[in-house]
Amino acid sequence: MISALSTPLMSALDQTSEWEAFIKAGQSASVHPNDLRLFDAAGLALDFTGQVTSPLLIKSAEALLSARHFNLYRDKLLSGQSINNTEERAAWHTMLRAPAPVEAVAAERQRMNEFIRKADSERRWRNIVHIGIGGSDWGVRLTVGAFGYAGMWRQVRFAASIDGHAIEGALAGLNPHDTLIVLASKSFTTAETLQNGRRAIEWQRNAGVEDPYENLMVVTACPDLAKAWGARDSQIFRLWDWVGGRFSLWSSVGLTTALAVGSDVVAGMHAGAAAMDMHFASAPFEKNAPIQMALAGIVNRNALGYASLNIAPYDFRLANLVPYLQQLEMESLGKSVDLDGDPVHVATGPAVWGMPGTDAQHTFFQWLHQSSDGAPVDFIVCQEAGHHWPEHHRSLLANCLAQREALLQGKSYEEALKECLASGLPQEKAEWLAKHRVHPGGRPSNLIVLPKLTPYTLGALLALYEHKVFVQGVVWGINPFDQWGVEYGKVLAQGITEELSGAKPKDAAGHDASTAYWVERFGG
Amino acid sequence: MISALSTPLMSALDQTSEWEAFIKAGQSASVHPNDLRLFDAAGLALDFTGQVTSPLLIKSAEALLSARHFNLYRDKLLSGQSINNTEERAAWHTMLRAPAPVEAVAAERQRMNEFIRKADSERRWRNIVHIGIGGSDWGVRLTVGAFGYAGMWRQVRFAASIDGHAIEGALAGLNPHDTLIVLASKSFTTAETLQNGRRAIEWQRNAGVEDPYENLMVVTACPDLAKAWGARDSQIFRLWDWVGGRFSLWSSVGLTTALAVGSDVVAGMHAGAAAMDMHFASAPFEKNAPIQMALAGIVNRNALGYASLNIAPYDFRLANLVPYLQQLEMESLGKSVDLDGDPVHVATGPAVWGMPGTDAQHTFFQWLHQSSDGAPVDFIVCQEAGHHWPEHHRSLLANCLAQREALLQGKSYEEALKECLASGLPQEKAEWLAKHRVHPGGRPSNLIVLPKLTPYTLGALLALYEHKVFVQGVVWGINPFDQWGVEYGKVLAQGITEELSGAKPKDAAGHDASTAYWVERFGG
Repeated sequence: MISALSTPLMSALDQTSEWEAFIKAGQSASVHPNDLRLFDAAGLALDFTGQVTSPLLIKSAEALLSARHFNLYRDKLLSGQSINNTEERAAWHTMLRAPAPVEAVAAERQRMNEFIRKADSERRWRNIVHIGIGGSDWGVRLTVGAFGYAGMWRQVRFAASIDGHAIEGALAGLNPHDTLIVLASKSFTTAETLQNGRRAIEWQRNAGVEDPYENLMVVTACPDLAKAWGARDSQIFRLWDWVGGRFSLWSSVGLTTALAVGSDVVAGMHAGAAAMDMHFASAPFEKNAPIQMALAGIVNRNALGYASLNIAPYDFRLANLVPYLQQLEMESLGKSVDLDGDPVHVATGPAVWGMPGTDAQHTFFQWLHQSSDGAPVDFIVCQEAGHHWPEHHRSLLANCLAQREALLQGKSYEEALKECLASGLPQEKAEWLAKHRVHPGGRPSNLIVLPKLTPYTLGALLALYEHKVFVQGVVWGINPFDQWGVEYGKVLAQGITEELSGAKPKDAAGHDASTAYWVERFGG
Repeated sequence: MISALSTPLMSALDQTSEWEAFIKAGQSASVHPNDLRLFDAAGLALDFTGQVTSPLLIKSAEALLSARHFNLYRDKLLSGQSINNTEERAAWHTMLRAPAPVEAVAAERQRMNEFIRKADSERRWRNIVHIGIGGSDWGVRLTVGAFGYAGMWRQVRFAASIDGHAIEGALAGLNPHDTLIVLASKSFTTAETLQNGRRAIEWQRNAGVEDPYENLMVVTACPDLAKAWGARDSQIFRLWDWVGGRFSLWSSVGLTTALAVGSDVVAGMHAGAAAMDMHFASAPFEKNAPIQMALAGIVNRNALGYASLNIAPYDFRLANLVPYLQQLEMESLGKSVDLDGDPVHVATGPAVWGMPGTDAQHTFFQWLHQSSDGAPVDFIVCQEAGHHWPEHHRSLLANCLAQREALLQGKSYEEALKECLASGLPQEKAEWLAKHRVHPGGRPSNLIVLPKLTPYTLGALLALYEHKVFVQGVVWGINPFDQWGVEYGKVLAQGITEELSGAKPKDAAGHDASTAYWVERFGG
């Protein structure tokens, strides 16, 4: 019971009476489409009317949180105590965006702003190649896409995968003399990032850049490794071991964001996220948006049996919100043992997937409406467009509302039959076709409305999901801050790479027959 | 029983003894990692070793297909008979890629090739803006991304969503005089496509292009509507009502592909797909790759209870394969009534999601390895790289094999404990941490190997999935070729758009309270 050293003893979730009561309440609750459930949090408007609820469910949810010592865990999170128990460290991303952060954070923020001011005033580097993967990639892609989609004076390219096509495509056509390489790796051991980084340095050198390291900036928690790799002290921005990779966009990983779309974007996102942190810390249970969103998610997962969650940003600029949230949700909640290492006997984090609307409507909304399963949907939309075609924005808003309404209300056999008859079909055929046109309805959703897309509202939105995920982690009793499932594959891949290159003999006995077959075939 | 007019009577799937036997066999089958199950189909190598199997399962699968009249349905599909029963038409996409197609198809193919030869020889249009959505979009994005990722002499942009940012971003910075607009809409009523098309015509006109329709090509099955919209006969390429939107990349929708990456790419894809059609039509049951892949998917869904399917192309160039397959799978199989309109009492098409590796490893592979659910994975990789960094490709191949091996083999508590002790942890702590590092294993996967990425292999790959989906549709007894769930939201959206614009009064009584609230708030 190592975890119990610093945390109260937790019973197995499925053995507690509070869980049982909560699940029962969830199963007997229903959607009340005419009973608005609106929330206001850090400038975002949230509408949870599309989720099942009941007074009993709300009451038993509060009892559940209390049984799971939620307030204590929230305090530990926000005060930077060691809450990531398997790695024995804090998960203090809220500090990175605090209005008055601790000295080390403030100093690094200041250093970064000075660096950017200088680079901007010298109009240095017309191109940036950002090299990082996972948490060192998606946050930057998301923010650059959100605020720079219509063009920036600097061009930004990304290389994440080990696939040589990724770095080849990222470098193609750029002038190496006028290109900054940003290398982001918390551990500075990420195979993809270091290998792509070497390609970028070679590319500079081959183009006659005398000192390629002049065009390099590194963001890492391990500056010594970066220095051994060739970077100088002045080229390294630091982060800390208490910054989880999937929360690192709030750290100096934001360097590329700031160079591409401005330091004010980074500052604005910090402010919006900090406002959501404040809301999460202080809003009462019933009005606390991340808490209520988390509980609705648990009801959908464990009481109603939904296996996945769909993210539907009705905003072209937020395309990368989907992979960003996939990492946040699935890397955090894709666990099946609790803090003590014992099996959690209930389903934990759902599969998360999605696509911006209206593309999504023409891709998989069929499945959301009429499949055997369906999935809860988070609709996300901006009230104000940010472009000059109001009729497009009206249609976008209307589509968002219409899909949500269709999922919720469905279409009955009687309505479908009326339609089919009205279209002139004979009775028997109309009856048959109507059965294909029924929408069961009753499929849950959230609606999240940003007044408009600004750094502040995007920051608040990301913090909303972070805290939602945290609450779910506490209820399920899992550690949302580790990722042991990522490590194992890395070790195996290292071994197979050496077998393929001939650096070590092919280990047929160490593999299953199928893996051995392909190692042989690929290894030539 | 309208459907029975043209098809044999089908019993409710869950009432048949063949289904019961198949499910039982699936539940008692297991993975045999040392018993290779390799398939060769149209130049692709498939390894299904990572799926459960048994002689009994194979036998009962064959009996199941026979009970579902599979051969008859396959014949109907491939010979262009009316198989899309609710829309009373064929789904004859195989004809579009046939080596010797029917006259209308041959003539249109010829017309398109001539158009492209002329445009290329005149070096006309340095830019293309492709406007289409769903089936008129993903196939083109996929092929242009696969074969033009490193640059083309023509620049191609895409606009799909109704979001004004989409068309704004697509047009930004282009020279209207040197830009061809390709408008693809089968029905020529798709709201997004027509509205974005109007923006593009306006943009040309505002830039002084005298006759913007000179820079326009339309692909549609409804040429009269296109002509009423302003297009001339010579500017219209036709498709036919028997071409489903999600199969339309094989039709003249390939115009943009051909202009961007060459007519030979289109021809090569046709050849590869036709080879897979031939395999599907003639390979015996046990060696028929689409059939066996479909059956493995049904076992995973209905016998083992997996709710979703992950697509993991280990190839940067195939990023758009994921949304392409999402549409193909989920729009086809996201149904819950059978051909007669009666409820299918078993789970049908899974949620499909994914991302290219190795990015996916740093995004959600944690969840695949250690979550409570997991999901089957289709690993897709090219043996030959197509770039000049062999060490990158070795790592890519190794990562793909390693993740698959980890999912299959898992890591036991004993192994994890040994690791933890070896890292110097004291016994009690090692035992506790090891519990967090266990991978359950036994998670199913496919491995699909393309010798290299060519039009031929990509064509074969897409046809493989098409036929897999078809087989699953036949077994579940659903119509994979309609999409009634897409229509309803369109009607609702039209109504709400008019409420928001003031074209009709706000219909609070016609909506639930929440929808009415947002219509009021967004409508100003």
